[in-house]
Amino acid sequence: MDRRSFIKRAGVLGVGASAATLAAPALAQDKITWRMVTTWPKNFPGLGVGAQRLADRITAASGGRLTIQVYSAGELVPPLQSLDAVIDGTAEMSHGAAYYWQNKSPALSFFTGVPYGMTTSELTAWVRYMGGQEIWDEIYDQFGVQGFLSGNTGTQAGGWFRDELKSVEDVKGVRFRTPGLGGRVWEKLGATVTNMAAGEIFQALQSGTLDAAEFVGPYNDLALGFHQVAKNYYMPSFVESGLATELVVDKAKYQALPEDLQAIIRDVSQAEYDQVAADFYANDPRALQTLVNDHGVIVRDFPEDIMEAGAKASIEVVEELRASDDPLVKKTAESFVEALNLVRTRTEKIDMPYQIARNKFLKY
Amino acid sequence: MDRRSFIKRAGVLGVGASAATLAAPALAQDKITWRMVTTWPKNFPGLGVGAQRLADRITAASGGRLTIQVYSAGELVPPLQSLDAVIDGTAEMSHGAAYYWQNKSPALSFFTGVPYGMTTSELTAWVRYMGGQEIWDEIYDQFGVQGFLSGNTGTQAGGWFRDELKSVEDVKGVRFRTPGLGGRVWEKLGATVTNMAAGEIFQALQSGTLDAAEFVGPYNDLALGFHQVAKNYYMPSFVESGLATELVVDKAKYQALPEDLQAIIRDVSQAEYDQVAADFYANDPRALQTLVNDHGVIVRDFPEDIMEAGAKASIEVVEELRASDDPLVKKTAESFVEALNLVRTRTEKIDMPYQIARNKFLKY
Repeated sequence: MDRRSFIKRAGVLGVGASAATLAAPALAQDKITWRMVTTWPKNFPGLGVGAQRLADRITAASGGRLTIQVYSAGELVPPLQSLDAVIDGTAEMSHGAAYYWQNKSPALSFFTGVPYGMTTSELTAWVRYMGGQEIWDEIYDQFGVQGFLSGNTGTQAGGWFRDELKSVEDVKGVRFRTPGLGGRVWEKLGATVTNMAAGEIFQALQSGTLDAAEFVGPYNDLALGFHQVAKNYYMPSFVESGLATELVVDKAKYQALPEDLQAIIRDVSQAEYDQVAADFYANDPRALQTLVNDHGVIVRDFPEDIMEAGAKASIEVVEELRASDDPLVKKTAESFVEALNLVRTRTEKIDMPYQIARNKFLKY
Repeated sequence: MDRRSFIKRAGVLGVGASAATLAAPALAQDKITWRMVTTWPKNFPGLGVGAQRLADRITAASGGRLTIQVYSAGELVPPLQSLDAVIDGTAEMSHGAAYYWQNKSPALSFFTGVPYGMTTSELTAWVRYMGGQEIWDEIYDQFGVQGFLSGNTGTQAGGWFRDELKSVEDVKGVRFRTPGLGGRVWEKLGATVTNMAAGEIFQALQSGTLDAAEFVGPYNDLALGFHQVAKNYYMPSFVESGLATELVVDKAKYQALPEDLQAIIRDVSQAEYDQVAADFYANDPRALQTLVNDHGVIVRDFPEDIMEAGAKASIEVVEELRASDDPLVKKTAESFVEALNLVRTRTEKIDMPYQIARNKFLKY
């Protein structure tokens, strides 16, 4: 029996106006519906699916007291206006990636991932235990919103290239679809970089407007059909070493929620950081198998000199942010580099040697 | 205003017995306290702290409707009777590691981690997307309990050795503290393996009863002081490539909870899978820095032939489980090996090459 029907019965039983008045604040809190806008197409593997699942999990864990209604890209606002929709009150929540909002602060890139940056495990360590969340809060406080990590794709694939790359020389003039800071790195390597929406890439590759494109990884790329026109699938993406998604909420409305609902939003977002990564780690290799076995895709490693030039260019991009006049951008970059220098020692002394040995010696 | 005080007021206002009767089921559900026994000492870095935090988060997210009272190792039952305590009803929850219960089913090892097994990211992919949880449920259904992943240490350190190891020959006769299936692997390599509780290891190393010991990693090991008597710290642990902790609950009592509380237990456990790993990824490197800079510890890689012999021995240990007469043990091992063979392709084509290149080319 829920409170509403109890009160109705109580009224019938003679409590009347007094009880109704007493119960009003509780009733007002009982059921809240929040709108979540997202930057992802509906059912987009890994990410769009993750936004919907996050919403459903908050609704379920709150017993329906906080119901989240999801609007995929374009349904309520255009995808790249999701953050603005929260700021202006059109929606209470946005699910997307912080680096989409570089025009608000270039520092936001660090909370999605920067070139030659952190892995999934390293980023959560920085955000939760090395000061990352506190700086992120400082940035988003300027806009009255609160950000939470809500997923990670893991290290991504490097991209689809029509022609084989034998050295960094071969990058010169390649017309490559790759957005953001990663695009700036590839530009420094000599590529002619353009950005375009997911739905336009295939056509551009097919018509010859593009020579190469990168999107996410096997799980997402398979559906987009790039393998039909570019057979060389290069690994890994050194410019997207782990792309984190975010849940952004209106901070004042968030803080006005009862504490248990605040905790549920926080906890479910963190559960989703693991869930989304698990989805990619399970489904990327399945998709990769299909691409190789059924579609004749050739999986290649980038030549060493591309990986090396990529590191040099990535450092330049991050150092520019570190030299920013905006104290918050500078502070974010400093915190990030310091944390990376520390966490990578564990990755490189423990995780990496394990993976190398297993790759070499373990065969079932 | 909470329901209890509303009803009290309603009673005063004349609703009387009828309302009390109507509200009874809701009242009974209002506040539940559950006991959580754990296998960890109080405040044990990463793991004991994680158990307490998980309990507190469930209490907070449920608004106190489900309050979890934590008993650390030995407070209510001895640490290795935690699972039995849930089975016999002494407690409703246990926080520990599934491989402690190998005497109930050897298949349980796979849900903590087996030698040369999965990484943190791979294990969650298997459990959540590749049939792992379903098999785990089948095993625990025999005991009337339900298991959830609740943390991961990441790949661990290999161990503290008094003397340098130049080849697998040097392992022969080394008296080494390392428990479980990992111990069996080291036995196959020629070590004289013993197990002993954490608190006894230092003394045994100091008196010369032990030549070597492994425990978890820098974060936990620093506090135990092994570096004072054995200076060679070997990396990585190929027998504990990612140790997952579990939350176990009484299944009947779990299923009798309202669905929102069931969701909260599930979601908070998954959030903690990320939180515990983040704690280790942030604090292991800090501890490692202290060990090297302040205590003169020498961090070494195991010689290649040890890593190779370790892989061979690990396969033997897993193949024994795969050949088990117990159909559920066989099924678990088969599912695990199949999933590992698939997920490792992503790790080895994407994650590992990225880490290798970053290690080689990125210097801030």
